[in-house]
Amino acid sequence: MDALESLRARLGELADLTSVEMLLGWDQLVMMPPEGAAARAQQLGTLARLAHERATAEEIGGWLGELDASDLDELNTDIVRLARRDWERARRVPDDLAAELARASTDGQEIWRVARERDDFKAFAPALERNVELARAYGACVAEGDQSAYEGLLGDYDFGLATNDLRDVFGALAAALGPLVAEARIHSPRRTLQVPVEAQRLAVEATLGRLGVEASSWRVDVSAHPFTAWMSRRDTRVTTRYSDGEVESLLSSLHEYGHALYERQIDPALERTNLGHGTSMSIHESQSKLWENHVARSPAFAEVLAGELQLGGFTVTAADLHATLVGVEPTAIRVSADPLTYPLHIILRFELELALIDGTLAVTDLPDAWREGMRRLLGVEVPSDALGCLQDVHWGAGSFGYFPSYALGCLIAAQLWEAMQADVGDLEELLRNCEVTPIQQWLAEHVHRHGRRLDTIALVEHATGRRPQIESFLRHVSPLLSA
Amino acid sequence: MDALESLRARLGELADLTSVEMLLGWDQLVMMPPEGAAARAQQLGTLARLAHERATAEEIGGWLGELDASDLDELNTDIVRLARRDWERARRVPDDLAAELARASTDGQEIWRVARERDDFKAFAPALERNVELARAYGACVAEGDQSAYEGLLGDYDFGLATNDLRDVFGALAAALGPLVAEARIHSPRRTLQVPVEAQRLAVEATLGRLGVEASSWRVDVSAHPFTAWMSRRDTRVTTRYSDGEVESLLSSLHEYGHALYERQIDPALERTNLGHGTSMSIHESQSKLWENHVARSPAFAEVLAGELQLGGFTVTAADLHATLVGVEPTAIRVSADPLTYPLHIILRFELELALIDGTLAVTDLPDAWREGMRRLLGVEVPSDALGCLQDVHWGAGSFGYFPSYALGCLIAAQLWEAMQADVGDLEELLRNCEVTPIQQWLAEHVHRHGRRLDTIALVEHATGRRPQIESFLRHVSPLLSA
Repeated sequence: MDALESLRARLGELADLTSVEMLLGWDQLVMMPPEGAAARAQQLGTLARLAHERATAEEIGGWLGELDASDLDELNTDIVRLARRDWERARRVPDDLAAELARASTDGQEIWRVARERDDFKAFAPALERNVELARAYGACVAEGDQSAYEGLLGDYDFGLATNDLRDVFGALAAALGPLVAEARIHSPRRTLQVPVEAQRLAVEATLGRLGVEASSWRVDVSAHPFTAWMSRRDTRVTTRYSDGEVESLLSSLHEYGHALYERQIDPALERTNLGHGTSMSIHESQSKLWENHVARSPAFAEVLAGELQLGGFTVTAADLHATLVGVEPTAIRVSADPLTYPLHIILRFELELALIDGTLAVTDLPDAWREGMRRLLGVEVPSDALGCLQDVHWGAGSFGYFPSYALGCLIAAQLWEAMQADVGDLEELLRNCEVTPIQQWLAEHVHRHGRRLDTIALVEHATGRRPQIESFLRHVSPLLSA
Repeated sequence: MDALESLRARLGELADLTSVEMLLGWDQLVMMPPEGAAARAQQLGTLARLAHERATAEEIGGWLGELDASDLDELNTDIVRLARRDWERARRVPDDLAAELARASTDGQEIWRVARERDDFKAFAPALERNVELARAYGACVAEGDQSAYEGLLGDYDFGLATNDLRDVFGALAAALGPLVAEARIHSPRRTLQVPVEAQRLAVEATLGRLGVEASSWRVDVSAHPFTAWMSRRDTRVTTRYSDGEVESLLSSLHEYGHALYERQIDPALERTNLGHGTSMSIHESQSKLWENHVARSPAFAEVLAGELQLGGFTVTAADLHATLVGVEPTAIRVSADPLTYPLHIILRFELELALIDGTLAVTDLPDAWREGMRRLLGVEVPSDALGCLQDVHWGAGSFGYFPSYALGCLIAAQLWEAMQADVGDLEELLRNCEVTPIQQWLAEHVHRHGRRLDTIALVEHATGRRPQIESFLRHVSPLLSA
């Protein structure tokens, strides 16, 4: 085998291992008997160790060194470019630090879980301190050129993002959204709708079916937290959950569908290469948010959803259903936030984690900073640390730099939706009839097919002609401000 | 790490990979959307290649060389003994031959499938010829000392079996069973019982529940062919299938339970070592046959099963149910054979595959030899090759030396049952009340806990005081000969 063949064989092997890890994770959350957990952790640990060893092996450097760039076609040029980037990035992390990060993440999650239960930030502080220090060290290792440690961390989720750009975009977004919240609470107040679980289930299955979810290459299951797993392009598994008196399942099933469709519509030629997955967390989140915010929360699609709820004998007008799906009410809790205030929760986390990593915020000062931020951004008084800075697992698990993708996803989704509208025409009319093929095709062409060939910013520019910006999102939420 | 630690870490890794392969196989047959098949084959191929590479690596020889046997405790002595045996055995197979065997197995199964559908032995003959030659070469590689190639093949399934011993045991068994068949057909004729699927399902779930199958560490699912998978000691998954007008599910669920219980009762200290699995195919089959033949087919347990069928509103007397579960009728097809004639099907296959590997039977002569054997052993006229020598996938897949374990399993099960009876007392009385704890405990102590520490013959001698023999089985089937 020549160097290119050897490299591609290794990348194929690594792609297979990633799929296998995903299956183990899916099985654990959906199928595994609970007492299988300890052995499953061992199995996942072994796979991760093997994959890391094979991904960082010396011989990859040898193959990369032998390759003559001028001999490579366009696809192989991208494959080699990303292989070099991934390999160099992974090799910059000392084994000791990698092992310490893994241990601290496991420990931190458990300490966080107990501390949150007891509303005891002090019990969590030392673990958070350790995670911050390790993340700072890790970020410094993987930072490119003159990037900061935080930018190094961002790169794991969204390669190429700059802290200053995020600061600008999020600053403008916070300034614009703040004044809108009070207005939206009046014109689009939060409502509840008591939909029986069985009617939700029938509506979710029927709606997903109309979007192309078929048993031949999909599974739809129930899990404690909705998620999506892709074992291959033709083996996609979404999960949802149903609770009485909530309509979350209608939103979350469309959200997961967006993640799933992205992975399914990547160019088949990229399968089993290092390019064959979604390019970043924020683009992935833009895909889920597009189907959640712009499809499931649209007035037109509410007609489809209301129709499918009839299957289970539940009657609601499209207008009432739509009002329920978009109602605004600031809350202390991110995961139950409405579409307008959601990005403000993320902006708070971005500000705080950046300050923690930069060293301008001490861990002990986090609870107060959180309260101040919630007051400033959302006008919400935080009732306890459990419902404040202890509510998310991310920092306990040592994940810093992940949060921004949630808000960027909302912005990019809105931007893509407008670009699509300009190309395809009246999207509301299509949604009213659940004619989603033009939407799927536009996304395939402009976003999905590229896999990892374009990074976040380049992909957004390619698809919309602009870098990520806030105007589209503000236009998207504007109907919430008037009855 | 010293040599022992390094070796044990590698064995732990290999155990994890085996569990992961098992999960992928289970998922494929029970959960996977059908279009996921191609990618799954790639994933399984990658795992098998990685596991083979890590199992045959040079460094294992280094660790084995460094180890000082006198420093090892009893457990580590066994671990090192088996590690050396497995490593040397795997290293004896040239990479080219291993790759050719894998390819021929995949090709052969597909050619076999088509040939059987068309009842066209000639179309299958070249693939079979190739499989026989490759198996002969492989068997010669792995044969120990003066073993024949066939004995080398046997060793993959049952280490230490000798062809001459099998010939003796099976010869005696065929001679003894032949004359009994006619008698059994009169006294225990085959009957059918039309049990609705829902009643079967309820009875299977209730019965397994009474044997300790709980959701906390088991799954029971449906698949096209019943099988058992163990992802770890506390994550066991059995499958069954239900067809109208058949009571197979009552037998096959107990059969699979026997496999499952074996793996669950292995000494926890052997977990993630090379000793932590069932020791051989024939011992595994003895465990499934014990629960199928000696529990599910016992007159006493028929009372339990008949009671559980009532859950689904189906009424049958224990006597009628028992008569249905044991009825004798020679047939051309192995998988639907009754408990008396089943071993005769295996003996035929043993004779023929031994002759194929020894070269005393040409592939082209197989169909005639099959017809002659069926006539001689079972008094059955074979209607076609599809229902004759093309009925099993094994030889198409390149598996030679596997069949004997099916018959040995029946013999060993009967022998264990008698030994248990001698220790525990009246087993029928226990079964009548579904008090299976003493049975489970006896099996744990005498069979299961040892894992791979004892090979087939040694284990049978240890548990029963004798080598495998036919008398127990003949006593077991004797009630079929008188009303």
